[in-house]
Amino acid sequence: MSEQVPVKPPLDFWFDFISPFGYFASLRIDELAARHGRAVDWHPLLVGVTVLKVMGMKPLPQTPLKGAYLSRQIERYLRRHDLTLARDPAGTPMNPLPAGRLFAWLRVHRPVHARAFAQAVFHAYWAEGRALDELPPLRGAMQAAGLPAVLADEVLIGPDATQILRAEVDAAVARGAFGSPFVIADGEPFFGVDNLELLEEWLARGGW
Amino acid sequence: MSEQVPVKPPLDFWFDFISPFGYFASLRIDELAARHGRAVDWHPLLVGVTVLKVMGMKPLPQTPLKGAYLSRQIERYLRRHDLTLARDPAGTPMNPLPAGRLFAWLRVHRPVHARAFAQAVFHAYWAEGRALDELPPLRGAMQAAGLPAVLADEVLIGPDATQILRAEVDAAVARGAFGSPFVIADGEPFFGVDNLELLEEWLARGGW
Repeated sequence: MSEQVPVKPPLDFWFDFISPFGYFASLRIDELAARHGRAVDWHPLLVGVTVLKVMGMKPLPQTPLKGAYLSRQIERYLRRHDLTLARDPAGTPMNPLPAGRLFAWLRVHRPVHARAFAQAVFHAYWAEGRALDELPPLRGAMQAAGLPAVLADEVLIGPDATQILRAEVDAAVARGAFGSPFVIADGEPFFGVDNLELLEEWLARGGW
Repeated sequence: MSEQVPVKPPLDFWFDFISPFGYFASLRIDELAARHGRAVDWHPLLVGVTVLKVMGMKPLPQTPLKGAYLSRQIERYLRRHDLTLARDPAGTPMNPLPAGRLFAWLRVHRPVHARAFAQAVFHAYWAEGRALDELPPLRGAMQAAGLPAVLADEVLIGPDATQILRAEVDAAVARGAFGSPFVIADGEPFFGVDNLELLEEWLARGGW
């Protein structure tokens, strides 16, 4: 007799490429989920839309007290996880739209390759200090994801990717996601890389 | 031969009585610190000053998306720690100034009793649903802290407590504290009840 093991639903994971905390989460989320038999559905999010427009807040790095605290949090996280960054997280972020649009388009049209593209973009931007808004590193991320480099050029020239990204961000807001990283597991929302341990406890216990 | 064990410096812990997360932290912080040989210095903070004036933010419960998330966080915390609240944390908070002023005054003039007063105020407001801005519960908190009930009336009639609280909040801001709860351990800042586990790891490892 074989037992039917119900497949547990995947986690939804949102991030913005310009967010160092989104990058940190991207390095852990798949392994964390897999320890509890879960897959992860990666989604693009734009904090410029959610935080600035929908929530009506200032950019957090420019918010008095909070900006300094974020710097401390990032330094502490880097030491704890033995990571380094090739760019100053307190610096002006690059335009995340081209990378976000490509990732959003790949999720729909090349879903098998989308996550590897996102990982390559995160790595290029945060670990190698490359640009987020220029074609060469985006072409390189395409190649790293097993796709033709020229796909970056082709997708960005059309309107589809823009529309898909916009719809994804709208859908994120409709589900209550606003920050980077943001995870929803079985309807329960977890914001911030500092909540990944709590998320893991949630998965291990099956909620509470 | 006796070994000289250096006394470790106390943690600084800030909270606002109107903050449910401040209340949650108040229930754990002393025990958490004691596990690592640390005392805790409790400080008053006013999020109406730090968050609204210094940081220029809206009240978080009224911030789109964040308000709903905070409600989920609170419910999740209550279930995880088997707690209940006697008041709706999404409701309009009461004026925290009288209680804050009394606590600030006690820290200076009756330091042995100040923490017990704060704990009694937190309990009355969050666990019993009593008022924060009326004399009877504040007199009750004085008595619970081993002080004459009438001290509440006497302190609030003068200007000292107002000035002490203002100076305490200014000092908090100068040290980078802005939210409730906020802990500084050996110069390292920890914001939010969700960071208490990280704080404990910090204390256990002696930083990293």
